Amino acid sequence: MSFNTFGRIFTVTTWGESHGPALGATVDGCPPGISLTESDIQPWLDRRRPGQSKLTTQRQEPDQVRILSGVFEGRTTGTPIQLMIENTDQRSRDYGDIAAAFRPGHADITYWQKYAIRDYRGGGRSSARETAARVAAGGVARAVLRQLAQQLTITGYMVQMGDLVADRARFDFAEIDRNDLFLPDAAAVPEWTAYLNEIRKAQDSIGAVIEVTIRGCPPGLGAPVYAKLDTDLAAAMMSINAVKGVEIGEGMTAARLKGTENADEIRMGPDGPVFGTNHAGGILGGITTGQDIVMRFAVKPTSSILTARRTINQAGEEIDLITKGRHDPCVGIRAVPVAEAMAACVILDHLLLDRAQTGGVRGRIGSAGEAGGRE
Amino acid sequence: MSFNTFGRIFTVTTWGESHGPALGATVDGCPPGISLTESDIQPWLDRRRPGQSKLTTQRQEPDQVRILSGVFEGRTTGTPIQLMIENTDQRSRDYGDIAAAFRPGHADITYWQKYAIRDYRGGGRSSARETAARVAAGGVARAVLRQLAQQLTITGYMVQMGDLVADRARFDFAEIDRNDLFLPDAAAVPEWTAYLNEIRKAQDSIGAVIEVTIRGCPPGLGAPVYAKLDTDLAAAMMSINAVKGVEIGEGMTAARLKGTENADEIRMGPDGPVFGTNHAGGILGGITTGQDIVMRFAVKPTSSILTARRTINQAGEEIDLITKGRHDPCVGIRAVPVAEAMAACVILDHLLLDRAQTGGVRGRIGSAGEAGGRE
Amino acid sequence: MSFNTFGRIFTVTTWGESHGPALGATVDGCPPGISLTESDIQPWLDRRRPGQSKLTTQRQEPDQVRILSGVFEGRTTGTPIQLMIENTDQRSRDYGDIAAAFRPGHADITYWQKYAIRDYRGGGRSSARETAARVAAGGVARAVLRQLAQQLTITGYMVQMGDLVADRARFDFAEIDRNDLFLPDAAAVPEWTAYLNEIRKAQDSIGAVIEVTIRGCPPGLGAPVYAKLDTDLAAAMMSINAVKGVEIGEGMTAARLKGTENADEIRMGPDGPVFGTNHAGGILGGITTGQDIVMRFAVKPTSSILTARRTINQAGEEIDLITKGRHDPCVGIRAVPVAEAMAACVILDHLLLDRAQTGGVRGRIGSAGEAGGRE
Amino acid sequence: MSFNTFGRIFTVTTWGESHGPALGATVDGCPPGISLTESDIQPWLDRRRPGQSKLTTQRQEPDQVRILSGVFEGRTTGTPIQLMIENTDQRSRDYGDIAAAFRPGHADITYWQKYAIRDYRGGGRSSARETAARVAAGGVARAVLRQLAQQLTITGYMVQMGDLVADRARFDFAEIDRNDLFLPDAAAVPEWTAYLNEIRKAQDSIGAVIEVTIRGCPPGLGAPVYAKLDTDLAAAMMSINAVKGVEIGEGMTAARLKGTENADEIRMGPDGPVFGTNHAGGILGGITTGQDIVMRFAVKPTSSILTARRTINQAGEEIDLITKGRHDPCVGIRAVPVAEAMAACVILDHLLLDRAQTGGVRGRIGSAGEAGGRE
Repeated sequence: MSFNTFGRIFTVTTWGESHGPALGATVDGCPPGISLTESDIQPWLDRRRPGQSKLTTQRQEPDQVRILSGVFEGRTTGTPIQLMIENTDQRSRDYGDIAAAFRPGHADITYWQKYAIRDYRGGGRSSARETAARVAAGGVARAVLRQLAQQLTITGYMVQMGDLVADRARFDFAEIDRNDLFLPDAAAVPEWTAYLNEIRKAQDSIGAVIEVTIRGCPPGLGAPVYAKLDTDLAAAMMSINAVKGVEIGEGMTAARLKGTENADEIRMGPDGPVFGTNHAGGILGGITTGQDIVMRFAVKPTSSILTARRTINQAGEEIDLITKGRHDPCVGIRAVPVAEAMAACVILDHLLLDRAQTGGVRGRIGSAGEAGGRE
Repeated sequence: MSFNTFGRIFTVTTWGESHGPALGATVDGCPPGISLTESDIQPWLDRRRPGQSKLTTQRQEPDQVRILSGVFEGRTTGTPIQLMIENTDQRSRDYGDIAAAFRPGHADITYWQKYAIRDYRGGGRSSARETAARVAAGGVARAVLRQLAQQLTITGYMVQMGDLVADRARFDFAEIDRNDLFLPDAAAVPEWTAYLNEIRKAQDSIGAVIEVTIRGCPPGLGAPVYAKLDTDLAAAMMSINAVKGVEIGEGMTAARLKGTENADEIRMGPDGPVFGTNHAGGILGGITTGQDIVMRFAVKPTSSILTARRTINQAGEEIDLITKGRHDPCVGIRAVPVAEAMAACVILDHLLLDRAQTGGVRGRIGSAGEAGGRE
Repeated sequence: MSFNTFGRIFTVTTWGESHGPALGATVDGCPPGISLTESDIQPWLDRRRPGQSKLTTQRQEPDQVRILSGVFEGRTTGTPIQLMIENTDQRSRDYGDIAAAFRPGHADITYWQKYAIRDYRGGGRSSARETAARVAAGGVARAVLRQLAQQLTITGYMVQMGDLVADRARFDFAEIDRNDLFLPDAAAVPEWTAYLNEIRKAQDSIGAVIEVTIRGCPPGLGAPVYAKLDTDLAAAMMSINAVKGVEIGEGMTAARLKGTENADEIRMGPDGPVFGTNHAGGILGGITTGQDIVMRFAVKPTSSILTARRTINQAGEEIDLITKGRHDPCVGIRAVPVAEAMAACVILDHLLLDRAQTGGVRGRIGSAGEAGGRE
Repeated sequence: MSFNTFGRIFTVTTWGESHGPALGATVDGCPPGISLTESDIQPWLDRRRPGQSKLTTQRQEPDQVRILSGVFEGRTTGTPIQLMIENTDQRSRDYGDIAAAFRPGHADITYWQKYAIRDYRGGGRSSARETAARVAAGGVARAVLRQLAQQLTITGYMVQMGDLVADRARFDFAEIDRNDLFLPDAAAVPEWTAYLNEIRKAQDSIGAVIEVTIRGCPPGLGAPVYAKLDTDLAAAMMSINAVKGVEIGEGMTAARLKGTENADEIRMGPDGPVFGTNHAGGILGGITTGQDIVMRFAVKPTSSILTARRTINQAGEEIDLITKGRHDPCVGIRAVPVAEAMAACVILDHLLLDRAQTGGVRGRIGSAGEAGGRE
């Protein structure tokens, strides 16, 4: 049991602080023989990297990943994979003035109260820098999934920012990587960009909702009752910095629905069961149905803003604090690749768990259907 | 790693099916010397028990808990506590007709696909019956918390049912146990009751939102970054049957907020830090601030309804299915004591984890405040 | 993490005290679709049961196991299997006189010091009664292994008692179940029996060495470096009551050997590698070679004897104590079925772990043998 | 659950291969506020480092440790501590000739069979190089123990090499670090050194028995029944490369003892219970008594020798193999600091587990002694 590990078989332990010499992820339980090099991981890190537009922090981090173990001659060996990213642009001077102050909305005060010591530089362990290690680990998970579940795709995108809500009728996943907001709607980009620039100029920040769709996931993944796939996905999303809510399928809206509206009816298709709707978000009883897995999570607005806020310091003195430094006006944007990476790790973990317990055998439908019919 | 265990030090492993001889919970890691008898646990089970009003299933289950181990002369010994509840009212005949059919919105089809075998009687392992074991384990956790954190209270209640949303201005926790809906608003009970009766008569069901407030929780609980308290609470709530969304503090609404609105400002009070607001829901960076912990979750409408739904059976034949039997028109009601029990287990677990790692030492605020100042 | 759980995927959590109402095992991670009834488990419990001869305690325990969950229509469902054994012959009066005294060589004093409370009846949780639950869980593991690894056999037997050491030249596994000592040498039974009777009449007890041989175990089981198969087997054996030493292959004798003597040479046989010797005990680098796995463990003499011993009580008074009651003159005898059961659980666990990580793919030998050649 | 992690609260995950760019340990669950710098860890690595005498491999490894995270301004922060050791002297050419051959007595063949790929350079993950990471993690554990258990000392030493057995009558722990063999007997050093040099010149190697004594360990550590302290210690020792047997207290010799000889009698001393003997090795029922913890383990002779051995290669061809390179004639010597480090981690882990479950409360002896008396 490690506080900094997630996963059951495919385990990821992240380590490192925002302004330490380096951070990274120790990945264990990876299947052997998988083709893997830094070039399989780096693109995902580049996608998350800040400093690419005015819409994210100007902090420059090359975020170059190095594989220190677990890979031999370009393939995984089944031993732990150590992924290290050196911190190059630390600018500690940005943070000196808050060494003994607690930024409102930040973990400064809780880390201090819990540990009676904290690395105040850039939030230390609680910094969003930590998510770079998750993205690197997700790159390993994706490399494995490419071999174990070729049909599977994991796509994250923004569906809400402040009061702006994306129009599903116009969704086109091909657009997501063509704009800085990970918006699946090209037409909306100018308006959303202008809106975010206003927020930024007002020295403020804004929240967002990110959605992740997993396509081509086989049925039967998930282990009731406390290792349900939705349980593990919810934990993974909630563990991301600044996330305050998680939804699967209808999510909170399910509270407004009637049983006659919510339950997805089933019909028989040429290749097996076909569901008429997907209110469940691809998961029933914690196990995948084979439909798209659809989840959303809300990211609160960045707490580090250039507007003065009332707070206290370690001496108990009341102060007004402006958090200088380079911050995202909408930290939800960079949560997109992080959520994809977490989802990749969770899905792979359950693929491995499933082959451990069931060997991948599946119940037959459309045959005599007697109890225990196996495919 | 067990699929059916939750918790890290205070671990709860539930077992049993809806229509097997018994179900229960194996509780390990409980501190020794805690006063505990069945009478400490039974009231919580009685509170959850169905068959108490027309608003919940008429199924009669005495749900009598027995302590089979881990308690000697009325006090815990530090060894595993086995809690067993025998299933007395099984009525298997109610379920024979769906032995080979997949109820829409249920885990029937996913259990079948995953395991190629399923106990179809009452949903087997996926039945809400399993939550009785959680409530029993929660009773143990509450007995320990009564000794380790006397100030702490855990209160669950309904805040939304379908389109009815409770009016916070009228909340009175004292009312919650005075009505069958766990509503904190006495004045709203008649309307909500009538609404639910309409749903029931229409042979339909409805979703709900449950809120849990934890008061008197000390600061410093939670272990970043993957054992964050909100991460563990979200997983616990999401693991409850029919839950589709989980929120902490502002939850999904955080997406609509600006940084200037969301970050809770801090002032110094006589006994330590005082927060002006609680958008964070009592948790920052995964660690408690000492404010109320506030979380909500959405429960989908019961899928078992007396209205015919289109589905298939194991033979792949398309059928129309009416789920006979005795079902809750709003399963969210009974989720209230379950959520409280899960919350009690998670909070206790983190109390034990915290004294393991920090020994309960806390950072001093209001002193010289030098790094490492300890209370 | 549960103190009372062993295993990683196939997990066994035992619960219960010697004189409580019942004890048992919660088994999780069992593959679905395995034929299983009480009759698959009971014979193993009967084999362990005391009261069968003068050589073991006369305490009468039917040790009837009941399956309370996880099995439907005679086959496992993939959900937790609860195994319960009720305690019927408790004779608490035997133990009243030591309620506040610490029996030398027993856990009485350590449980008291750790927990400040203990169930003194028959040793409570530290009683060998707990091993009945292990044997029941082992019965489940064997039922699974019968399907997943048909060739595999697990055989435990006594190789030393006091100064008597069995003669390997005369070993015949067929004899093991034909005598009360689990001796693989029929000719030695009379002498060993007489020796043990002398010990018993002298109101004394004696230690023993038990050996377990696992045949037909496929190569490739074991997960370096801290989940090595020999590591998990050593932990399993050491967790058995009264065990003080564990050996794999040459064991402690390896200290006397030279490299030229110890390393098992390899030659190529028709079906793959053939080892000239088996000093390694079937495990290299924590992974099975395909040879017999051979391990031994030493069991100390029963501490409960009818001879007075000097000790103290909770009041700190010095007393002389005779442990009345019905005790084994050689507790090592009953450790044989327990060790087999533990071994079955560990081997199954690693079979499941291996198919999770490698999918059961094996490296090819005897082909071109290029890196990554797969069978 | 990670294959490469040990510990429950204080967890250590080692990573890295013999000839990769680096190896290290990810340490989680470390208490905050502990003074820690590289200089607290380096001396333990230097003590283990090869190339210091003719009696260990001439391979030159500076083994410089770097702390990459979890420490701020010289004190631990409670976040993961990443310890990295770069591999500087790799000499891959030494190993090219065995790239496709299986060295007898090594994990070459089992890694190949399991993973169908292996880093053949210096044994890759199965190399004794991995133990450098354990020693580094042990340095962290010792720094914490220095604060949490000042009285506690952990001392490892050699007690047997081949047929040479140390004379306990002459033991003097002060001598251990004054010779290259970690012998507690200065007078024996010349004879043992000469014996080992003969082995080396004969291009052979020899086994050894290492003993570890832990003094000043408080009573009450250990968590029955599968997290017993002796169980965790046995697993820790057995996980060390080349270890084939583990003993606690009397160990395998317990099989020869009678109950009247083995059980340690108890008397009352001025400061609490006093045991007349220590056959138990300081542990009863898996929990410490407060006596010295005494354990031993056997290390097989180095399998890499300059004498030709018969084996096969991946092509299945039968070959004779001489393992060139620089090898320890007695790998047991370097196992001493490794065993000490593992013991330090296990003891600290149980100290933290104990304060989680019991809060460090202890049962009172010598008072009224009523059940539940607490100190």
